Amino acid sequence: MTAPLYTPPGYQALTAETAATYLEKIPTLQKLLGGERKNWKIREVGDGNLNLVFIVESPDFSVVIKQALPYVRMVGESWPFPIERSYFEHEALKEQYLHVPHLVPKVHHFDHDQALIVMDYLHPHIILRKGLIQGIRYPKLSADISNFLAQTLFKTSDLYLSSAVKKAKIKYFADNTILCKVTEDLVFTDPYKIAELNRWTKPQLDATAARFRADAELKIAAQELKLKFTSSAEALIHGDLHTGSFMVTETDTKAIDPEFAFVGPMGFDVGAVLANLFLSYFSQEGHETPQDPRAEYREWLLSQVEEIWTLFRQKFITLWEKKAKGEGFAPELFTDSASTQALREKRKNFLAGIFADSLGFAGMKINRRILGLAHVEDLESIKNPDLRARCEKKALKLGRYLAIHRSSIHTIDQATNEARLIFSEEV
Amino acid sequence: MTAPLYTPPGYQALTAETAATYLEKIPTLQKLLGGERKNWKIREVGDGNLNLVFIVESPDFSVVIKQALPYVRMVGESWPFPIERSYFEHEALKEQYLHVPHLVPKVHHFDHDQALIVMDYLHPHIILRKGLIQGIRYPKLSADISNFLAQTLFKTSDLYLSSAVKKAKIKYFADNTILCKVTEDLVFTDPYKIAELNRWTKPQLDATAARFRADAELKIAAQELKLKFTSSAEALIHGDLHTGSFMVTETDTKAIDPEFAFVGPMGFDVGAVLANLFLSYFSQEGHETPQDPRAEYREWLLSQVEEIWTLFRQKFITLWEKKAKGEGFAPELFTDSASTQALREKRKNFLAGIFADSLGFAGMKINRRILGLAHVEDLESIKNPDLRARCEKKALKLGRYLAIHRSSIHTIDQATNEARLIFSEEV
Repeated sequence: MTAPLYTPPGYQALTAETAATYLEKIPTLQKLLGGERKNWKIREVGDGNLNLVFIVESPDFSVVIKQALPYVRMVGESWPFPIERSYFEHEALKEQYLHVPHLVPKVHHFDHDQALIVMDYLHPHIILRKGLIQGIRYPKLSADISNFLAQTLFKTSDLYLSSAVKKAKIKYFADNTILCKVTEDLVFTDPYKIAELNRWTKPQLDATAARFRADAELKIAAQELKLKFTSSAEALIHGDLHTGSFMVTETDTKAIDPEFAFVGPMGFDVGAVLANLFLSYFSQEGHETPQDPRAEYREWLLSQVEEIWTLFRQKFITLWEKKAKGEGFAPELFTDSASTQALREKRKNFLAGIFADSLGFAGMKINRRILGLAHVEDLESIKNPDLRARCEKKALKLGRYLAIHRSSIHTIDQATNEARLIFSEEV
Repeated sequence: MTAPLYTPPGYQALTAETAATYLEKIPTLQKLLGGERKNWKIREVGDGNLNLVFIVESPDFSVVIKQALPYVRMVGESWPFPIERSYFEHEALKEQYLHVPHLVPKVHHFDHDQALIVMDYLHPHIILRKGLIQGIRYPKLSADISNFLAQTLFKTSDLYLSSAVKKAKIKYFADNTILCKVTEDLVFTDPYKIAELNRWTKPQLDATAARFRADAELKIAAQELKLKFTSSAEALIHGDLHTGSFMVTETDTKAIDPEFAFVGPMGFDVGAVLANLFLSYFSQEGHETPQDPRAEYREWLLSQVEEIWTLFRQKFITLWEKKAKGEGFAPELFTDSASTQALREKRKNFLAGIFADSLGFAGMKINRRILGLAHVEDLESIKNPDLRARCEKKALKLGRYLAIHRSSIHTIDQATNEARLIFSEEV
């Protein structure tokens, strides 16, 4: 992949300077920011892997400009990456805003040709992942995340949408091919083979990585889950819902960056959240000090895993009971009392399926963050490689367990207890 | 649904007369037919529900012109039906021709604005369903149909296609919304509720129909299968593969009419074939006479059910072993001997899943042909309503059994033995 990608005529990557000129020309934005360019403070903060991100602060209001670059920023122009991802991000943000306006940034402006979204600047929010590394507790986290998941997944599924609207969503997001392919490779395939982009803590994890590459049972699970990813058009999913995709304060939670969105399996989003909480759980050992012990915080993290699943399940079922109007499980068939009762049982059974998927995807997400290309700061910031490897080995043990046993784990407590058990063992 | 549907400017439903003028203007077709309009014999034969069909015979060659009408022909202009279905039919025919050129009619010409396909006139072929009513055996049937199913389903699945190509197919066929919705309503929903379009043999089946509408377990199964239909993007399926969609001689088999095509669950096509063979099986009692007993023929029909499944399963597995190059079960992960062995087991397990789906969809297809809008000639042509109802009750008993027990039926013999058992019982 080395040919430069298409960008629309006039597409121009912004600088802090040209960003101001750009904003001036859009009356609504100029007005929002109070009109006077000289009062705007603009800085580029794209620490991320893919995009330009500018924060624009004025005395009146502050916004973020996010512009897609036609290549992977962390790698350079040698890895082209389509700016069309901005269209899918914008479309997903709009959809999410319909269902959970308080849990996503508000979009103020979208520029198709510049692949650019202007949205709320979230402050004093920080990236959830960074908060978890610091050992901060967020009292509303499980309520907000479970709400985001239940609302966005239910309301873009066949349980809520007409067949035609659902198919229109499938169609629109079917073009997000290259980003889906990144997930297919980096999450489900590369960690289980020798791949140029893989990296891990060496030499401590060499043997584990080799064992994973030879683990037939795990590779079958990985590919079953990949097939589910490519062929289960259940709902419009965020597609990259790790703890770096939430901005939080103690009283507010916002999900950001849905550029990987497409109509896929619901468990992929749920699993991404759970996986990253588990990664945080195992990483705490690398951050704790005698002055800052993390034993209780670890338990708080597992309580979040438990609550997020439990609340998500409850809320999804409640939405299904109260708001069902879609093509799936046509409500008019279930009005007599035997059918009502059967549907009640079916809902539980349906959620049990989502649960198994979520655990499986969580396992995939854990493994890829330790053996694949993209790692997480929770673990990367542990300076001592022996200590880091110790945390990583435990996380991998859970990742493998979740992927392989996903269909025989029946409660979320079983999963968190396994995490506790693995934590307490020597590796 | 009463607003007239859009047709492109210039769209004009053909008559036998204008069809000749049309053909004259297309040099390739004029040449194919030998050039002389006066030697062409054109007749309209669209006995079907939806389209205009002209047979054009000349001393040199014969073709069929199939043109979509913007409404359901059997109902009239009060039920608009998009002519775009012709685009999906054409696209599906092209795809099938790539994989099984000997099992589909060759397309000679496609006219987008006229929603018109010119293809081989299949003769002396007859509709398979009519052959089965007459008690004709087709020695190549199970080999050909299993081949059609294995080739078209495997080669449009994630096991064969790259992620990008698969998504392009999902996208293209996602516009076939209205035809998918017809299936969702007529196959999975209407037979299980009071619906204006439903009809059945009255009063003989009144109680059965009422029982089906109150059957909680069956309605749950029906809606589980509907959700699979709307959200499983496994392969490009024909979408309407009943015995009226095959044209046959004793030595040739052609699948026709894929206008319901979209990327859906593989078992839907397999199940449609099995269902219609089972319907034929139960209908034989209505066609047999002392001079034309059908006991052996009934057994031949069940042998076709058994062979089609068994051969399909074998061929699909062989294709997977020999031709896998797609995104699913990435071949490069399964090179060591333990992984090779695990993948071998997985293939069987995967086909067991398709089997369960196929049985479930077969059950749906049986039920809808007896309790829903569109019936089958196998049963409709039985003049004595008591006799017809008797055949239908038995078929419905099997339909219900297959839908509900689809996951606990482990061999095709179990399904055919159940059919034999039901046949032998009083209803």
